[in-house]
Formats: sequence, C-alpha cells, structure tokens
Amino acid sequence: MRFPRVALGLPGWIDDLVADVDHKYPTDVDRMRLVVELSRRNVQNATGGPFGAAIFDLSTNRLVAPGVNLVPTTNLSIAHAEMVAIMVAQKVVGSFDLGGPGLPPYELVASTEPCAMCFGAVPWSGVRRLVCGARDEDARAIGFDEGPKMPDWVPALEERGISVVRDVCREEAATVLREYAERDGIIYNARRGEQSEMGDGR
Amino acid sequence: MRFPRVALGLPGWIDDLVADVDHKYPTDVDRMRLVVELSRRNVQNATGGPFGAAIFDLSTNRLVAPGVNLVPTTNLSIAHAEMVAIMVAQKVVGSFDLGGPGLPPYELVASTEPCAMCFGAVPWSGVRRLVCGARDEDARAIGFDEGPKMPDWVPALEERGISVVRDVCREEAATVLREYAERDGIIYNARRGEQSEMGDGR
Repeated sequence: MRFPRVALGLPGWIDDLVADVDHKYPTDVDRMRLVVELSRRNVQNATGGPFGAAIFDLSTNRLVAPGVNLVPTTNLSIAHAEMVAIMVAQKVVGSFDLGGPGLPPYELVASTEPCAMCFGAVPWSGVRRLVCGARDEDARAIGFDEGPKMPDWVPALEERGISVVRDVCREEAATVLREYAERDGIIYNARRGEQSEMGDGR
Repeated sequence: MRFPRVALGLPGWIDDLVADVDHKYPTDVDRMRLVVELSRRNVQNATGGPFGAAIFDLSTNRLVAPGVNLVPTTNLSIAHAEMVAIMVAQKVVGSFDLGGPGLPPYELVASTEPCAMCFGAVPWSGVRRLVCGARDEDARAIGFDEGPKMPDWVPALEERGISVVRDVCREEAATVLREYAERDGIIYNARRGEQSEMGDGR
C-alpha cells in the first residue's frame, strides 16, 4: 500500500472509567456528567483537548460509545470528541446509520456545543437527539474556534428530526474548559486569514 | 479494550491508478481529472459512493493523498471522500495541521462541492485552497443531500484564508453522479424529519 491506513483508538483510561457495562444513565444530567468527566480526564491524562462526547442508547439508557478529542495525539484534525464517539458507535452497532430501521433511538451528548464540522456530521450519523453542555461562547472565551457555523444551527437540526437540548451542566463543562486554559493547554485554532500561525480548531 | 478501534484504508485499486509517485499535476484541470477518475472508479469497483477527493502539494504539484467515499464499505457516516483525503494526508505529513509552519501549501480537490460536514472540516485541515468540480445542485439532482450548509460557504472559507475555485470539469464530475444514479446506486441520505427511512448523507 502506497498510502497509510488511518487508525484511531480510545485511550486506555476510558475502559477503567466505564468499566461497568450495565451502568445506566437515565437522565440528561447523568449522561452529561459522564461526558464532562471524559473531557476532564482527557486533559488530566494529556490524551487530547478538553472535549468529551458519547453516544447513548435511549431505549436502555446505556453507553454505546464514548469519545474524546484526539486531535493532537492522532494528528487528525477531524478527531473531535463528537466525531470519535460517532465512529466508535457505528463500529459497535455495525451501521453507518444509527437511525436505521430496527435500531433503537441513539443520542449524542457533547461537553461543548458542536463546531461547524461536528454540526454537519450530526445529521449523517443517524442520532435522534443532541444534548450539549458548555456553549460555543464558553469555548470561544478560552480561545477555541467553533468554525464557520450557521447561527441558526439548532433549528437546522430540529428540521431534520434531531431534537437539541442545551445548557445541561453548562457550568461544570465550562469549568473544564477554563481549567484547561489555566494549565496553558494548547489552543489549536484554525488560522484566520494569513496572519495566524495556529493550526487546527477544537 | 471494551470499545473497537476505528480503522480505515484506501481500496487497493487506488494504488494502481496512481502508481507513478513522481507524476505531476500542474493545473486545476489535471488535478480534477484525477479526482473525477477516483469518483468514477469508486463506483465501478463498488467501494463506495460517487465522490472523489485528493490533497495535492502545490509546491511540487504532486499527489499527497487520494480519497474516495467509503461510507457504505466502512460503515462510517463520516467517511466522505474529502474527510478520507484529509485524514490520509495528515498521516502522510505527520501533522493535524496541513497549514503549519514549515509546510508547503496544500490543496483539497473535491469532485463535488463539500457537504455541511466537509465544509466545516476544511478550515481545521490546514489546506490553503479548495477546488470543486460538480456543484451542490448536481448532487441534489440525483437525490444526494448536502446537509445544512450555509448559503455563503465560499466567502466563509475565503475569510479564513482558503481560496475556493468552482466548476472545474463540472460536467465530467456531474456525469459520474448521473451514471451512478442510472445504475441504481444507493442514495444514502439523512432522514428529513421522521418520514424518511433513509440513512446517511453523501
């Protein structure tokens, strides 16, 4: 093969965090608390940026796939937490469409509202519901860039049958972002025009 | 590991198509012809949807990484041609930022204008230039969905220092889309509201 394969695995510490496969996450707050903990531990373990996500099966309230930002550790700009969770969930379920016939409803929970790319990925994933913690402006407050996202992104998803819930544990989620900034975590933003030397967003 | 790794490789036929590693693609048309050929062969070989993409090094005019749509063959909704090309290129270069210090300018060429997700991925990738073949409406004409993409996506990229060139070999690129539709290729669109049973976009 002339061209390399692309491989991407979750950090080992995640297995310990979610060792109980039968654990149930019945409420938005239960599910968001896990996702915020993923974001916090991703920083503590230096495995990526301060963002967590997960896919849950709403028929059982069980975790299907966690995700964390792996951009700096995989050298893949697309490895945002939401994208990682979606990819792992689709491998678990065995379908590129988590909303396909015969499947239970799946939900994406994200510790921060999705960037422009992750927003665009949500309809293709097949999830029926998106739950967000910190707001775009909380990410921007520490220097992260959400990309060129349409202002009316919530109704755009709802028009496609995906319900959106915001501000779940927003303060806890935003605290992880602020702590990351205080630790001088890398803010790998996309360049804006030709001036900046910075790299990847989120 | 409780959760599966995600792995993604290019189909074997691509190695034969681009066997000459020293081949140069000096013009937009040269580069687009390769990308349209990728989209055509992806259909012929049944390795995915009718979309091709590639990353080129504009300092040498050489191919860095090809990409094709691998959604149905990998079961990953994010495996659009552009995303695959970006991921493979970042593995080749060894950086999540193709626009980083010391790197030559890289270009993304896409056989069809990017969907909402791929549009959002472009600024994070670090490419300096985007060249498109078929238009959004050519994809929509055969039933594909470009997702919730902002109408002013071209200026949104240009504001970030990414130049956009459209309609390069548009007719050849759109012909591949039409041929795919005539062969009854799967149109795996996102559901719109609750009515549709269809799955993933593009």
